[in-house]
Amino acid sequence: MTIERRGLMCVLSSPSGAGKTTIAKYLLDHDNNLKMSVSMTTRKRRPGEVSGKDYLFTQEEDFNKAIADDEFLEWAKVFDNYYGTPKAYVEQQLSHGQDVLFDIDWQGTQQLAQQARGDLVSIFILPPSYSELERRLHQRAQDPLDVIHKRMNKAAEEISHWAEYDYVVINENLTQTVDEVAAILSAERHKRKRLIGLSQFVKKIIQKQ
Amino acid sequence: MTIERRGLMCVLSSPSGAGKTTIAKYLLDHDNNLKMSVSMTTRKRRPGEVSGKDYLFTQEEDFNKAIADDEFLEWAKVFDNYYGTPKAYVEQQLSHGQDVLFDIDWQGTQQLAQQARGDLVSIFILPPSYSELERRLHQRAQDPLDVIHKRMNKAAEEISHWAEYDYVVINENLTQTVDEVAAILSAERHKRKRLIGLSQFVKKIIQKQ
Repeated sequence: MTIERRGLMCVLSSPSGAGKTTIAKYLLDHDNNLKMSVSMTTRKRRPGEVSGKDYLFTQEEDFNKAIADDEFLEWAKVFDNYYGTPKAYVEQQLSHGQDVLFDIDWQGTQQLAQQARGDLVSIFILPPSYSELERRLHQRAQDPLDVIHKRMNKAAEEISHWAEYDYVVINENLTQTVDEVAAILSAERHKRKRLIGLSQFVKKIIQKQ
Repeated sequence: MTIERRGLMCVLSSPSGAGKTTIAKYLLDHDNNLKMSVSMTTRKRRPGEVSGKDYLFTQEEDFNKAIADDEFLEWAKVFDNYYGTPKAYVEQQLSHGQDVLFDIDWQGTQQLAQQARGDLVSIFILPPSYSELERRLHQRAQDPLDVIHKRMNKAAEEISHWAEYDYVVINENLTQTVDEVAAILSAERHKRKRLIGLSQFVKKIIQKQ
């Protein structure tokens, strides 16, 4: 029994070290109805990267024209490179009932929220404690202490935006966290407002068809 | 890792024959944080019923006084008996982080929605088709056809209110439906606005405690 529904945009944000990338990978591997959003970028393609899969590679002139034409849901300049989410691609997915996953920070989420309206489901992943976050950042990197210190400050800044999200999940145990995020997706798919085929379906039941 | 949170009121509505009672029973048996709401009623206690567990039994005079004092979240008169949900009991549960399940129809849900504000999570269970609903109503009852016919009309009336609910789940397969309703509860428990202990928790992470 599948009722036609509009797709949703699921944003997963967290400080680096809270497990977001692992959670996203697991969801994408196990959920046929979820696709990663593909960003447009002006940065050079790296060996092994596929245009249209990893990124949509483009030139700065074209990117700037797309900004001027309001073709992005959100965009940012990171160092010398531009990154943005094309509206047309996402709208096409949503209108076909396909859910799109975004791995963006609080700034991207704020931009997205301006345009996404009812389509946005934003989830913030928190580490279980300061010491656990520190441990994970250490484990992950062979970097000197001052680099880790900078990363901790950046993490604290990201965490300070938790209150802008719809849902908050604390990643103490990865399996449980993945289940909790999957439950959020399942629930949001049963929101009445997304089930655009429901009105027709109910009519059939009431009219004895 | 348990963050202090406010409980929620979960309303499960459906036409008779859509499986609501079975779903509610399963949830209550498997979810320690969910309790059935206890109604106050003026009807006579039946053998085996326990006051304070099945119902809070009371006299009509006291019930009317409680109505006048605005002590119910919702109430109704069914034939000669009054039934109502006491505000104080529910508020006590919610403020202790306990979730409360309500098995009420669309009229009760409308009343509840007026007072519950952010605490309400309303779920409507639909049968997969007209013929399946008919089959289940037949199976359930040894009643004559005109009684079943009346019950079908009542079911159609209840179904017509589906659009007043937050979530809609189609009960085609009971195991799947129970999972879907449990996922809604899990998701709603991770709503940022319910996690009243989160602000303190985040402060500890950012301040390195």
